[in-house]
Order: sequence, then C-alpha cells, then structure tokens
Amino acid sequence: MSILVVGSTALDSIKTPQAANPRLLGGSASHAGVAASYFAPVKLVGIVGEDFPKRYLNLYRRHGIDLEGLQIVPGKTFHWAGEYEVNMNNRRTLRTELGVFENFSPRLSKAHQETPYVLLANIAPALQHHVLDQMRRPTFVIADTMDLWLNIALADLLRLLRRIDAFVLNDSEARLLTKEDNLLAAIRQIHRLGPKYVIVKKGEHGSVLSSPAGLFLAPAFPLRKVVDPTGAGDSFVGGLLGYLASQNGSIDAHLRRAIIHGSAVASFCCEGFGLTRLARITHREIEDRVKHLEALVRF
Amino acid sequence: MSILVVGSTALDSIKTPQAANPRLLGGSASHAGVAASYFAPVKLVGIVGEDFPKRYLNLYRRHGIDLEGLQIVPGKTFHWAGEYEVNMNNRRTLRTELGVFENFSPRLSKAHQETPYVLLANIAPALQHHVLDQMRRPTFVIADTMDLWLNIALADLLRLLRRIDAFVLNDSEARLLTKEDNLLAAIRQIHRLGPKYVIVKKGEHGSVLSSPAGLFLAPAFPLRKVVDPTGAGDSFVGGLLGYLASQNGSIDAHLRRAIIHGSAVASFCCEGFGLTRLARITHREIEDRVKHLEALVRF
Repeated sequence: MSILVVGSTALDSIKTPQAANPRLLGGSASHAGVAASYFAPVKLVGIVGEDFPKRYLNLYRRHGIDLEGLQIVPGKTFHWAGEYEVNMNNRRTLRTELGVFENFSPRLSKAHQETPYVLLANIAPALQHHVLDQMRRPTFVIADTMDLWLNIALADLLRLLRRIDAFVLNDSEARLLTKEDNLLAAIRQIHRLGPKYVIVKKGEHGSVLSSPAGLFLAPAFPLRKVVDPTGAGDSFVGGLLGYLASQNGSIDAHLRRAIIHGSAVASFCCEGFGLTRLARITHREIEDRVKHLEALVRF
Repeated sequence: MSILVVGSTALDSIKTPQAANPRLLGGSASHAGVAASYFAPVKLVGIVGEDFPKRYLNLYRRHGIDLEGLQIVPGKTFHWAGEYEVNMNNRRTLRTELGVFENFSPRLSKAHQETPYVLLANIAPALQHHVLDQMRRPTFVIADTMDLWLNIALADLLRLLRRIDAFVLNDSEARLLTKEDNLLAAIRQIHRLGPKYVIVKKGEHGSVLSSPAGLFLAPAFPLRKVVDPTGAGDSFVGGLLGYLASQNGSIDAHLRRAIIHGSAVASFCCEGFGLTRLARITHREIEDRVKHLEALVRF
C-alpha cells in the first residue's frame, strides 16, 4: 500500500565539530520519504525552487518516489543552516530562509487523495490540515511536529490532534505540550487530546509507544559514531509508516515491529551528512539492524 | 549464595517539592543490602553512631541481614541532606555530616572473608580496596561509584577497576571518566581499564550492559509517579547482585535477567521516601514487574 508524505523539502547547510556541508538535501519530507521508500511506494508532496539541484530530484526518483505532488516554482528553495555542538545533542539554527516555502499550498491530485497511508511530516499544522482536508478516508494518518509549532501554532496543532490516528513528538515536546514532567502522565494527557497512538521519541534513548495494546519501550540502535543526526526523527517516522504500509493486517499487530524498523532506518540516517547514508542502505542492512535490535533487548 | 555488601549506612533528610522527610534510613549499603535481601542472604559491612535508631536495625534484621559487620560506635551517624527539583532528575546537597563515617575502617570476620559475592556499593574507593584486601577469592565482585570519587580519588578508583569483575556507573560518570561523549566509545575505554562487565545506568532511560556476550539494552520500569529517587541506583545494583547470587550457573547466563530484576527493585525504591517502599515489597510484586518489563520490550 502506498504512502503520501507531506512536509518540508529543503536544502540544509550543516556544521558539526568535524565538518561543514553546504546545501545538502534536507527537509522532513525528504528524510521521511526516502526512509519510507525502502518499504512501500511513496508520493511526495512539497515545494522547491528552481535552484533545487537536479541530482536531488534524481535521488528521489531512484527511490521510486512519485513526484507529481512536488511543486517546482520560480524562486529559492527553503534553506536551513544549523550547527551542532560536540555532544551532537545540542544544535542551534544559524539561518532559516523560507524562500518558496512561504507560499506553499499543497494541492493533491485525485490519485493522491486516495492514498491509504498519510504521513504529515514536520511542517506547519495549518498545512497538515490542508492536506488532510483533501484526503478521502485514509486508512491511517500519522503526524509529526516540532517545538516551534507548539509555541506559535498551538491551536492549529490541538485541532489536528483530533483528526489523526497517531502523533509523534519528542520527549521535551511532550512535556512542553502538557506541562507534565512525568512522561507517562504526559502521554495520558496527549491521548485525551485525540490520538489513539502516541509515540514519544527520546533520541539515543529510543522511543515509547502508547496504544490500546499498552506501552512499548523501543530501543534506539546504539551507534559508535554519530556523524549528523539531522532528520533522524523524520527517518524514524518514515521507516515506521513505510513498514506499516507494507504489512497486511491490523495496525496493532504490526506497530511494534514498525517502530523497530523506524529505529533501524533512523540509525543509518545519523551515520552520514544529510541523506548521504540514508539514501544508500540495502534491505539486508536494515534487516541486520532489526535482528541486532532484537538481540540487544532479549533477556 | 550469600553477598557481602559494603557501603555507607546513613541518615538521609530529603526534601522534594511535595514533602520533607528528616532522618530516613539511607546510604548506599542500606539500599543495596535491602534490595539484595529479596534474593539472597546479605552480610552488611558499615558503621553507624549511637544515635542510629533501633527501628532501622530492626528493619535490617527483618530482611535477614547479617549485622556482624555493622560497627556501632560512639558519635553521630553519617547524615546527608538533599533537595530535589520539580523534575526529580536534579538534586542538590544541602548538608553532609560524615560523623563516625570519617574514621570508618571495615574489618571483616573470617566468615565474611569467605563470602562468594561482593558488592562494593558507593563509598570511597580506598575503603572498597580495604574490603577487597580482606576477601579470599570471591566468585564475583561488582563495584558502584559516584562522580565525587572520579573527581577526588581517581587514582584509587582506577586501581580498583583492575581488581573487580563488574563496574557500575551512570552515563554522565562514564563520560566524565573517559572524556568520551559517545557512550559505546566510553564503555570500550572502561573495559580497557579492567572490568569484564560494564553496566551504565541511565536513570529513567534504563541501563546498558557490555559484556563478552555483547551489549544488552535494559529498560527502566516506567513509573507514573516518582516520589524519591534517592538510592535507586544502589537498589538497582543490590537487586542485580542478589538475583545473580541466587542463580546457579555462569554469570553470562544470568546477568541480563539479573539486570531486569535490578530495574524492577529500583522502581519500587523510587515509589517511597528513603526505604519506605523498598523495604515492603513482596516477591510476587517483583516478579510482576519483571513480567511487565518483558511485555514492555517484546516485539
């Protein structure tokens, strides 16, 4: 079954203590879409400017990503520049140039409106709504977000939570949204806001799924070296939904393994700048990490 | 098989945003000893003053703890006072009065010297050495520590690492000790310093075991409410070694489940001030949490 991915499509300039890489392929939809493409056909919805490198379009295409929903318009592509500290957990934004993204209005074709799985990757909640408004009875809708939207578009986000099946956010965002320090208390509150499934990302500490089937504590794949964590969360949710879309049967029956596949894919993302590693993994490598994760938590 | 536990035996005055509790039973050996006592016979080695409440001696006795090695001497019991912030992850020390602890010199009886399992709970490395010096070929020695000793007694600690089987420390201490930000890199370095088994505690994020059998990512039991986390790490290592001592067979065959039992016991510790909850758990309650932990990570 196929997936519609809407989110940002951007150029990222990323500095770490080791290196500086200008104008990498970035954006939540790029990471999520490529991650999902290892499991299911992906339709990308986004916008780029005329400066968007052809090689990045080709990268999408090599992953079989349907680009009908990618608007290419006069102007500059959304550009984000950021810098990581030594520990790779702290980063600061150096520059954000919205470019053509400022006037982005997703328009879905008839075919796109029928897509069963929908990933509302990190983007303004108003745009996430705008996509949902056009969808016809999707099977499963998952939304990601970031602290920015909690701060400047909370009403839109709260309204979104009543329209989606699953909500993904990180632990500090869960605490910010609910004013609860205890993670389980925060999760309980988020369920009350709407979503049946709540997935809290904890970076290197893994993630927590809360669902009608109970809690699931998922590990992150332990890495000896993190090169660039940008997009790891997007890759996680992309891999997760990709796996889910590839399985027949109920969401509850496959969600735990879907999260593990998301963890595996996200770990590759961290091993290279931008999408350089994520775009070159094999199914065998993913399955090896899934098996490794099984061995890491077995007792 | 029995366990020798050496560490601090103290009175703790603990403030949290919810309550203030003066002169609770505390100290690393108290938490670790009581936690271990659910699984194996415990011999406590420590020192208290004449002000040490009888009810705390009775609490030890109710747990079948051998007090031959507990010196009761003229003077005041070690007293620690601390205060937690709202999120319970940050605490500050308000007062430390060493009292009789200042001149503590553990003396082991012949019988104690033959104990097969040794827990060097958090205490000055010089005292941990002093206990090891008196032991006769123990089966398994595990040591815990704290950041203080990394800062003021590093040479003693490094010398200790060459004498023990397993070393337990938390993630920030692992980074402090090795100057490595990446946890796997830090663990690799710690192995080079001596211990065959390295166990890194990550609080609510669980723990990581590194052994010849590979890595194990262990969950922490998720709690809806943390009342007082003081001693959770001591309870973890106590429960861990207690379970290990209760099993026949190789360390490698039982260490993962031992860590899970440590996690379960530590979670009870956090649910009450001092030892109030830890001292009143049943075997059934521990086993229920172990089963729950299994269900929480299964996929």
